Amino acid sequence: MIKQQNIRIIPLGGLGEVGRNMMALEYQGKFLIIDVGLRMPEEDMPGVDFIIPNVNFLKDKQKSILGIVFTHGHYDHIGALPYIIDKLGNPPLFAAGLTKGIIIKRHEDFAHLPKLNITQVQDGDKIHLGPFKVELFRQNHNIADSMGLVIQTPVGNIIHTSDFKFDLDPVFDTPTDFQRLKEIGQRGILLLMSDSTGAEEAGHSLSERTIMENLEGIFKNAKGRIIAATFGSLINRIQQMISLSEKYGRKVAVDGYSMRTNVEICKQLGYIKSEKGTLIKPEQMQNYPDSKVSLICTGAQGEGQAVLMRIANNEHRFVRLKKSDTVIFSSSVVPGNERTVQFLKDELYRREANVFHYKMMDIHAGGHAHKDELKQIMEIMHPRFFMPIHGQYSMLVNHAKLALEQGIPEKNIVVAENGQIITLNEKKISLDKKPIESNYVMVDGLGVGDVGEVVLRDRQTLSKDGMFVIIAIIDRKTGKVRSSPDIISRGFVYLRESKELLGDTRKRVIEIVNRTVGSGGAVNWSYVKDEIRNRIGDFLYARTKRRPMILPVVIEI
Amino acid sequence: MIKQQNIRIIPLGGLGEVGRNMMALEYQGKFLIIDVGLRMPEEDMPGVDFIIPNVNFLKDKQKSILGIVFTHGHYDHIGALPYIIDKLGNPPLFAAGLTKGIIIKRHEDFAHLPKLNITQVQDGDKIHLGPFKVELFRQNHNIADSMGLVIQTPVGNIIHTSDFKFDLDPVFDTPTDFQRLKEIGQRGILLLMSDSTGAEEAGHSLSERTIMENLEGIFKNAKGRIIAATFGSLINRIQQMISLSEKYGRKVAVDGYSMRTNVEICKQLGYIKSEKGTLIKPEQMQNYPDSKVSLICTGAQGEGQAVLMRIANNEHRFVRLKKSDTVIFSSSVVPGNERTVQFLKDELYRREANVFHYKMMDIHAGGHAHKDELKQIMEIMHPRFFMPIHGQYSMLVNHAKLALEQGIPEKNIVVAENGQIITLNEKKISLDKKPIESNYVMVDGLGVGDVGEVVLRDRQTLSKDGMFVIIAIIDRKTGKVRSSPDIISRGFVYLRESKELLGDTRKRVIEIVNRTVGSGGAVNWSYVKDEIRNRIGDFLYARTKRRPMILPVVIEI
Repeated sequence: MIKQQNIRIIPLGGLGEVGRNMMALEYQGKFLIIDVGLRMPEEDMPGVDFIIPNVNFLKDKQKSILGIVFTHGHYDHIGALPYIIDKLGNPPLFAAGLTKGIIIKRHEDFAHLPKLNITQVQDGDKIHLGPFKVELFRQNHNIADSMGLVIQTPVGNIIHTSDFKFDLDPVFDTPTDFQRLKEIGQRGILLLMSDSTGAEEAGHSLSERTIMENLEGIFKNAKGRIIAATFGSLINRIQQMISLSEKYGRKVAVDGYSMRTNVEICKQLGYIKSEKGTLIKPEQMQNYPDSKVSLICTGAQGEGQAVLMRIANNEHRFVRLKKSDTVIFSSSVVPGNERTVQFLKDELYRREANVFHYKMMDIHAGGHAHKDELKQIMEIMHPRFFMPIHGQYSMLVNHAKLALEQGIPEKNIVVAENGQIITLNEKKISLDKKPIESNYVMVDGLGVGDVGEVVLRDRQTLSKDGMFVIIAIIDRKTGKVRSSPDIISRGFVYLRESKELLGDTRKRVIEIVNRTVGSGGAVNWSYVKDEIRNRIGDFLYARTKRRPMILPVVIEI
Repeated sequence: MIKQQNIRIIPLGGLGEVGRNMMALEYQGKFLIIDVGLRMPEEDMPGVDFIIPNVNFLKDKQKSILGIVFTHGHYDHIGALPYIIDKLGNPPLFAAGLTKGIIIKRHEDFAHLPKLNITQVQDGDKIHLGPFKVELFRQNHNIADSMGLVIQTPVGNIIHTSDFKFDLDPVFDTPTDFQRLKEIGQRGILLLMSDSTGAEEAGHSLSERTIMENLEGIFKNAKGRIIAATFGSLINRIQQMISLSEKYGRKVAVDGYSMRTNVEICKQLGYIKSEKGTLIKPEQMQNYPDSKVSLICTGAQGEGQAVLMRIANNEHRFVRLKKSDTVIFSSSVVPGNERTVQFLKDELYRREANVFHYKMMDIHAGGHAHKDELKQIMEIMHPRFFMPIHGQYSMLVNHAKLALEQGIPEKNIVVAENGQIITLNEKKISLDKKPIESNYVMVDGLGVGDVGEVVLRDRQTLSKDGMFVIIAIIDRKTGKVRSSPDIISRGFVYLRESKELLGDTRKRVIEIVNRTVGSGGAVNWSYVKDEIRNRIGDFLYARTKRRPMILPVVIEI
């Protein structure tokens, strides 16, 4: 059977979006899974905590899942695991040391789940999973133990770069091993699947060396406390700031839940190194002169409850900002957070702190290859087929254009999105016409997947013009409204200042009910309610140009 | 009386924010007002249309208002007028030709307001208003008839730059007249109030010449239709695109309400020039070969209802995208719109259009001076005192730092925010300690100022976890709940899939009522409701980790 000679690639997340990375590779009905990530909700999804992949495609295939290989420990690659592992039948997991540490730590929060069946692997290891032989190779990113994958399959070698950049001179990390990459390339690569996050960025990504040098300039000149905010997952940057603090004689407090947790895991496993006595608690900062302490914290995105916002708002338990403080944003602004970050910056300036952010100098670098590096890996791997992964659709398209410029023929390049199955053999790569389910599965509190279109649309409507509940009690005998209808409204107008509007509305409700209920015979209650909803809706719109959600309740007694 | 020798400057909007520009100057109880702008709402203000200044400070001073001078026709300088003019007692207005045209056109939408008392002025004109002599001088911005103001006062000359940039080689506009600026500077400037919008941007702003040259490169190579999106208020850019279309033999359709309105006004008043027959209607585009038409439209910010989004979503009445189409974003991304613009770009790429945006090449320039130009105007005006205006607080602070670098002494620089009154005389500039009211006044539909903290907070709560109305009918005689309580919920969970949760909730409501109402005697209804709210709130949280707004209704019959 010729069909059996194909590999099928099933992207379940991360293609056409940033985050929620998850992919399955299939050969003869056996599945290898790479990463199980989550992503943050869009702006039109109020109340949603995060979004995970839809794995219905794998529902009946539990016994055919050979294993899950994780490329690194960021939540967009591991974060959906607790919500999905049951559905996948708790298959064997493979992860390098730090990745494994973060996965296990997180798993503790989900006491009802079975114990994980996780194997620690490292750079150079080969994992044999049925027809797949997965070899890990170290990549530079901004968390330790980031791995690219060479997957030896019956049809040829497939590269999955995962998140990567080339860094010739990193700090607290080994430079990119081009010799090794070339050796891999020389084996012959059938398909290169490469990280597209930076595919719209010109040139070469910044080296962490540059970042550390610029950070050192700030540390050198700071006279008071240093308060440095970055992502809790940016372990390498956190190490830089600890080391700089030590160099300049500062104790270091770490604050913010995600960052504290990560630093603890990394200390335990040896991924963050500090001298004895360097790390203190935030409440101990006041025991040292201002010039002898740093605080590394979360909140560089302006998140309402994170440490930096609490400091800016004078709501932090131990830190009150002073003019001599230096505040560093060692982070980019995640798209969508621009307004809140501006608000935060304004507050810090109001408190007269010395503020440094990435627009003023290079004190942040992303973890993703830019165009030059993306071209370089294509040259090194010299693949027959190319498929951009990880990124918004515009990034995938621009990455594909780069591949075309590098001489890969158009018919050998596939731009796929989540749910579009790719069929691959030695001669051909193609996209299935009919996509499988790959929609957003939303997590809100304890609910997984129970917030859907209807609930979200209601939340949006409620947020715009609020709601307006009308309760009319109708006397069964007379068919008339008893006393005055009750009205409950929130988010529409300030009720105390709208007595006239409410009075007029009540009168209209009574008229509508008395007209529609009629006297005697069966009453069409849904008609009565529709009439209230439509007519009161129009009335309120005419008076206010607002459209609250109208909810009529008619009770017959 | 020495006190009478002071000028007081009252910033009512635009200081500490971008937009809503409005300022009053007072001398001996007489007021000159500069601009009356609006701004867009923040992300945590769902449903709000826009925000206008609070003018309560001027409420009892109508007779002392000498006039309002407008610097240019953008809505952040003129847009709040219809909502405020009544409160200001319809004073005399002064505006240059295009600004006046836009103000009058907009006023037509407010039929209930009195006729405007507006005088047309132009570059070089002097307006005598009591103790103030206001002279207009032309500035480069991105709309015609942009004016800076030299205000001769009894204490000295004050410069209000309004929005400006220096452009040595603009298109369809005159280069900056440095000779004229120098002449003004030589009169002796007591206070320079200068635009801070670009105070955090290094170097010199881009010339519109560069933009037009890059746009021409795109026009030259485009084989199919050109669809160019920009701000409806960017008259100069619209002219560039009309002229380029004519040069390359293309007819031009203009689509999008604000842009069509602006183009109409500009055509009538001669601010946009086009050959006879160039402008066509969108529905006529199909009558020409693709290579012979352009569409200039709104929607570059990814606004849901604007033209470009409708095109991307295949919902436009006349335009279906094809592979040969070229789509140009000739605009920056307004902070907060990054996600929607990315979404829009992805959709355009999915339809295989050729997309050009400002990150790929310089096809947009802002209208505001960068650091180099801001330093240059300080050198030219050589003011004794300096005050940054127009911008977020971080921009004001960084602008003040520039002034310090330029040698203006720290005590001569004032960083003020909205509501902080500045007192100025020949010798001294100072800030009043106690600010006046200058809070946001929100416009939502027909309501001005009736959406306040309470309504907004309710909207936010509703948007996150929805609402949950519980209606319990209680029999007056027995004190028991009659039948089963009604529950109405929206935005919380999908009700049809939550029957068990609702059933359990109803049981609990009945228990709570029966326990709290008791039998006989007066019932404390607000206690009953509080108990329902709190206990059902806790119950739902325990079951779902969500906190919908709980609204208990208890009806006694």
